[in-house]
Amino acid sequence: MKKNVIVAQSGGPSPVINASLLGVIDGCRNRNDFGRIYAAWHGVEGILKEELIDIDAESSEEIARLRYTPASGAIGTCRYKLKENNDEDYERIIEVFRAQNVGWFFYIGGNDSMDTAAKVSRLAEKHGLELTAVGVPKTIDNDIGDDKFTIIDHTPGYGSAARYWTHIIQQAEEENRAIGVSEPVIVLQAMGRTSGYIPAAARLADPKREMPLQIYLAETDHNLDSLTENVNRMLVERGRCIVVASEGFNVGSLGEARDGFGHIEYGASRTTVAQKIVNHLNDAGLKARGQATGQVPGILQRNTSLFASTVDIDEAYRVGLKAVDIAVTEGGGWMATILRDRSAAGYSIYYGKVELEKAANVARKLPADWITADGLDVTDDFIEYALPLIGNGPPPIEFENGLMRFARLKRQFISKKAPDYVPVNMR
Amino acid sequence: MKKNVIVAQSGGPSPVINASLLGVIDGCRNRNDFGRIYAAWHGVEGILKEELIDIDAESSEEIARLRYTPASGAIGTCRYKLKENNDEDYERIIEVFRAQNVGWFFYIGGNDSMDTAAKVSRLAEKHGLELTAVGVPKTIDNDIGDDKFTIIDHTPGYGSAARYWTHIIQQAEEENRAIGVSEPVIVLQAMGRTSGYIPAAARLADPKREMPLQIYLAETDHNLDSLTENVNRMLVERGRCIVVASEGFNVGSLGEARDGFGHIEYGASRTTVAQKIVNHLNDAGLKARGQATGQVPGILQRNTSLFASTVDIDEAYRVGLKAVDIAVTEGGGWMATILRDRSAAGYSIYYGKVELEKAANVARKLPADWITADGLDVTDDFIEYALPLIGNGPPPIEFENGLMRFARLKRQFISKKAPDYVPVNMR
Repeated sequence: MKKNVIVAQSGGPSPVINASLLGVIDGCRNRNDFGRIYAAWHGVEGILKEELIDIDAESSEEIARLRYTPASGAIGTCRYKLKENNDEDYERIIEVFRAQNVGWFFYIGGNDSMDTAAKVSRLAEKHGLELTAVGVPKTIDNDIGDDKFTIIDHTPGYGSAARYWTHIIQQAEEENRAIGVSEPVIVLQAMGRTSGYIPAAARLADPKREMPLQIYLAETDHNLDSLTENVNRMLVERGRCIVVASEGFNVGSLGEARDGFGHIEYGASRTTVAQKIVNHLNDAGLKARGQATGQVPGILQRNTSLFASTVDIDEAYRVGLKAVDIAVTEGGGWMATILRDRSAAGYSIYYGKVELEKAANVARKLPADWITADGLDVTDDFIEYALPLIGNGPPPIEFENGLMRFARLKRQFISKKAPDYVPVNMR
Repeated sequence: MKKNVIVAQSGGPSPVINASLLGVIDGCRNRNDFGRIYAAWHGVEGILKEELIDIDAESSEEIARLRYTPASGAIGTCRYKLKENNDEDYERIIEVFRAQNVGWFFYIGGNDSMDTAAKVSRLAEKHGLELTAVGVPKTIDNDIGDDKFTIIDHTPGYGSAARYWTHIIQQAEEENRAIGVSEPVIVLQAMGRTSGYIPAAARLADPKREMPLQIYLAETDHNLDSLTENVNRMLVERGRCIVVASEGFNVGSLGEARDGFGHIEYGASRTTVAQKIVNHLNDAGLKARGQATGQVPGILQRNTSLFASTVDIDEAYRVGLKAVDIAVTEGGGWMATILRDRSAAGYSIYYGKVELEKAANVARKLPADWITADGLDVTDDFIEYALPLIGNGPPPIEFENGLMRFARLKRQFISKKAPDYVPVNMR
């Protein structure tokens, strides 16, 4: 009897995570190695609670629509942290896999998820459960891997976040040029905690450096005072300024909240980086008429489907296919990966694999030599790296009565076969 | 000798304001009544300073691109308030018009701009200057007119802001469904000061009311406590909640800033409505795991060209054409307007005119009978009104090397002919 498949997602949504899910589904269906395909509802929580969606019960039309459906609403995601010594939860995963005859596990997520997949894989082996666990990378932050790009060149999700920033900065420039006489400083807060890839993408809007754009990264030692000085210098020179600041930019305490992984959750903080900057600038007094204004796009930068990159969508899909290919031909313990052929004339990538543990234990920052000496910009090397990732134009999203027609899954749960269980963190 | 034309923009940008500008330009070029076409750089400030862009010096390809170029960066806008008894500035406008042989004035803007156009028109008459001044309505707020829709059915700009909110709420639903287990409450702050048309458009994302969506308008008497109660009720029922709050929703003081018109400028306030809501919810304690998170899209809702409505773009263009038509056939003192044939089976509009004074002196709010009894939603009548305005799909924006290809004007200024002058508010 062929073993069944569980596919699950973890961590923050991205505009292309469902494309990877579709890649895994199509990859499994293209072969004869697999039994039924189940998706865990809300990631590892769904496995623990044995809430498993029967993907084979969904219509093929709706499944195909996953390609352009953003975020992770189709099968859900979670920030449930399986603790290091939380043997009980890990054992439970094995119990559910055994009860449902699951022999294949595809886990779409970031570093933490790769760590979880590796642990599940090892534990299954220990328990004599035949399980092939393969990871599918996903994070808009692009912070998986090393800064030599040998583990992964870029993560699915990043190209779309980069495209979002490219376009909103193009628009911010139209706006700032329009109304800079009375609203001279536009402050925009970008996601990315410790890793500056997302705010850096603002530069893609202006590769020739014609805009009055300044980028404040978590990786530099700028602060509110040096920012104010720089902005005022720009106001004297150009009369206006566009400020992109990482949520991890050093502005002092925000009253940060923490998510289930212990990571800072900036969206729930007591104040925002953008607000601190706006207040500091307005208090210091701008060298221009008018005031600084703040915008915090928050989740919009990780779920805006019209800003998804067609390149990113395609790669997210193919890396899902690749994960299935690895599972069948190479076995478990790997993460599928995207590598770039740097010797090629144009943009050229290929898909590969890396040990889950290796992917789990690296948190990439923007390479120091991609940041300009004044700490306010990124270099042409960054532009060369990132520009191909944003594609050229919007994806062909389907519209119906004015609305985007996203995948509508029935989400039919399969019968539970394991004993009832309450996950450790939910007791 | 044919009289020259000045076209100018005022107030906040919109994704379709340049389409109206294009309508005025094309309208003038379609007739033989006009001399040269000048655009005032940064609205009335450009007139006062005699900074006039020679539109006839621009290439026709770039002018045509105005149709899909958002915000007002092409010719600029301003929030310069011509004060009631500021005779000096008004006299200066007449002086510049006379010096540049200007006989036609098209002013694209909201209520305040219509008031300015009316005053300029009267003053020209008083001074014996032959001047035809016609207004072109523009505001994403949809707050020009009366709530019987006899002055104007809807303003160019609103359909695009409504489409922005429709789609970001569709995406927020995908996100909230995805990760509601750990980030159960998404708070999004909408523009609109006193008028609830923009936050109301969130409902268009979900006409069948399937989402856990609550809309907090400036027009209701909800407050932070009642909001918290309602959100927690939703969390008990559905486990998650999407909160859309007007920037004018009553949360107590924000430390508001004021713009040149004396209007509250929420983007520059000391804190935001979204932040106050997030903090209040997290302090009160959510009846769910996780935290509320806030997003403040700010200017993105008024300049995102991929979210511009094709219906809105077309109407913005045609109302520009109509303004020229009115100027030639009916004379000055009018604002071009969009009216709806409510007896028609489908969506059917026609263009008309209204006295500038009549347009200037009304600030429309959402009709009380379009707000549901619980003050958390809008009715089906609103949906019927607003849904046709968002169109069905994105505009055909041109892309080049990954970037949106917006109009690039040379902005060649014509020679000054009037004496030097410093505007009253800039002394």
